[in-house]
Amino acid sequence: MIIVPGIASINLSKKLAKIMNAKIANLEYKIFPDGESYIRIVDDVKDDVVIVNSTYPNQDKRLIELFLLIDNLKDLGAKKIKVVVPYIAYARQDMRFREGEVISINTILKLIEKIGADEFITIDIHKEHSLNTIKIKAKNLNAIEVIADYLKNISFNEPYVLAPDKGALERAKKLGEIMKCEYGYFEKYRDRISGAIRIEGIDIDFKDRDVIIVDDVISTGGTIANTAKIVKEKGAKRIIAICTHALLIKDALEKMKNAGVDEIISTDTVENEFSKITVAPLIARELC
Amino acid sequence: MIIVPGIASINLSKKLAKIMNAKIANLEYKIFPDGESYIRIVDDVKDDVVIVNSTYPNQDKRLIELFLLIDNLKDLGAKKIKVVVPYIAYARQDMRFREGEVISINTILKLIEKIGADEFITIDIHKEHSLNTIKIKAKNLNAIEVIADYLKNISFNEPYVLAPDKGALERAKKLGEIMKCEYGYFEKYRDRISGAIRIEGIDIDFKDRDVIIVDDVISTGGTIANTAKIVKEKGAKRIIAICTHALLIKDALEKMKNAGVDEIISTDTVENEFSKITVAPLIARELC
Repeated sequence: MIIVPGIASINLSKKLAKIMNAKIANLEYKIFPDGESYIRIVDDVKDDVVIVNSTYPNQDKRLIELFLLIDNLKDLGAKKIKVVVPYIAYARQDMRFREGEVISINTILKLIEKIGADEFITIDIHKEHSLNTIKIKAKNLNAIEVIADYLKNISFNEPYVLAPDKGALERAKKLGEIMKCEYGYFEKYRDRISGAIRIEGIDIDFKDRDVIIVDDVISTGGTIANTAKIVKEKGAKRIIAICTHALLIKDALEKMKNAGVDEIISTDTVENEFSKITVAPLIARELC
Repeated sequence: MIIVPGIASINLSKKLAKIMNAKIANLEYKIFPDGESYIRIVDDVKDDVVIVNSTYPNQDKRLIELFLLIDNLKDLGAKKIKVVVPYIAYARQDMRFREGEVISINTILKLIEKIGADEFITIDIHKEHSLNTIKIKAKNLNAIEVIADYLKNISFNEPYVLAPDKGALERAKKLGEIMKCEYGYFEKYRDRISGAIRIEGIDIDFKDRDVIIVDDVISTGGTIANTAKIVKEKGAKRIIAICTHALLIKDALEKMKNAGVDEIISTDTVENEFSKITVAPLIARELC
């Protein structure tokens, strides 16, 4: 088995190859002056291959490069092509909310399949049902266990695992159970007419406690910031925001820090300075 | 027949719809904060459709949007889907120059086909043989006639049509024949060892003449600038650079102007301030 690293997942690919004791293919990569990507696969790939390429930042470019890689590997004689996309872009548009809308994730998955992937693996996709549209074997992995493994080595003061909305409660529950600590959620609503704020969910005194806010994605950081503000007001000692995919769009970082977030931790589905938790063991387990 | 305008070819689509007396579909388009494209087709499209979308600037985004459009139109009940890509990106990598290289254009055309296009039309593709790899009906149109039509209305002083290299000579010949004027090419070579400059091709006195330099693409403008400098030294009165696809990367414009180019004219395969010649009649003729 040969690991083929996409440009967005070079470090993750190396970690995965090390765990699996697999070869890693050498690639030449550049961007032409007009903005087009150039890729050359230097090594022999006439074996089963695993492409690892995330699709953020620059979703469109990463996707095109993924298609180029899959098609080229097939052409160069690769046998089975497993495609690992740690963060799959365009997943939020997973249904037609309004008539005539593009169901983006269906198109993207169809392209991956039709260009020659034999198997598709992703991590914490926005909605798992999206994988039902793809005809090849497809699997969504849950990052919560590698996140819990990482947190085990940090000492917390009366930790509380908090979901920033009802949708993230299942995630907080799993993490709370593994960490053997309290968990819950709250959600802030603003009455559209009166403007009054109503908080649904737990009403807890966070005084001097460490609060771990957990979500699947941090994009603009707005949800985390709103939650952190309330937690801070309720006396929390330390606030840690933890997620699988840290997109951190524009001033997300500043917004969260200003709201009282002390630390941001994510997995390396998106590689950046916060991605301290690797999903490599998770992917390796699935590939074995 | 309904024309569906991609974001890169809105004006061209309108011109095409007018010529063909066809309906044009209304689209909602936006970019999400994370950079993903949102497209909604507002009108009924249960008919034969023609998507018109160029793939420059931002090749990767325009391609992803093209795939989203094709797949969505199919899903919304469009009958026959003809895909017009006035400028097709990734066409320069049309063969494996070195072992292991991605043959980008093959992958891109395969994606257009596999996602549901029934027919593909492009204009002045880098190499026509690239279309042999696609299994649906595919056609490359030559823009030289619409360019000649446009130039007929401009008065020139003893015009000379010049190809900036041997590869563009066929184009210069066609244009020269239609315009009933002289044509030729020259190419500048630098000896790799001695550094001596040798000019291959015509040796002509351009004194007080108008020189029309013609090429398929102007990308960095380097080729045109080098040619213009020599033409200027040889006494040309006016230098016009004309092309099908004006990509104009980075300082291309400045480079050409500094070299003595007085005017840049292109077709609207790429829409910008220089695209004064429309390819709409050319596409209309093919669709009829």
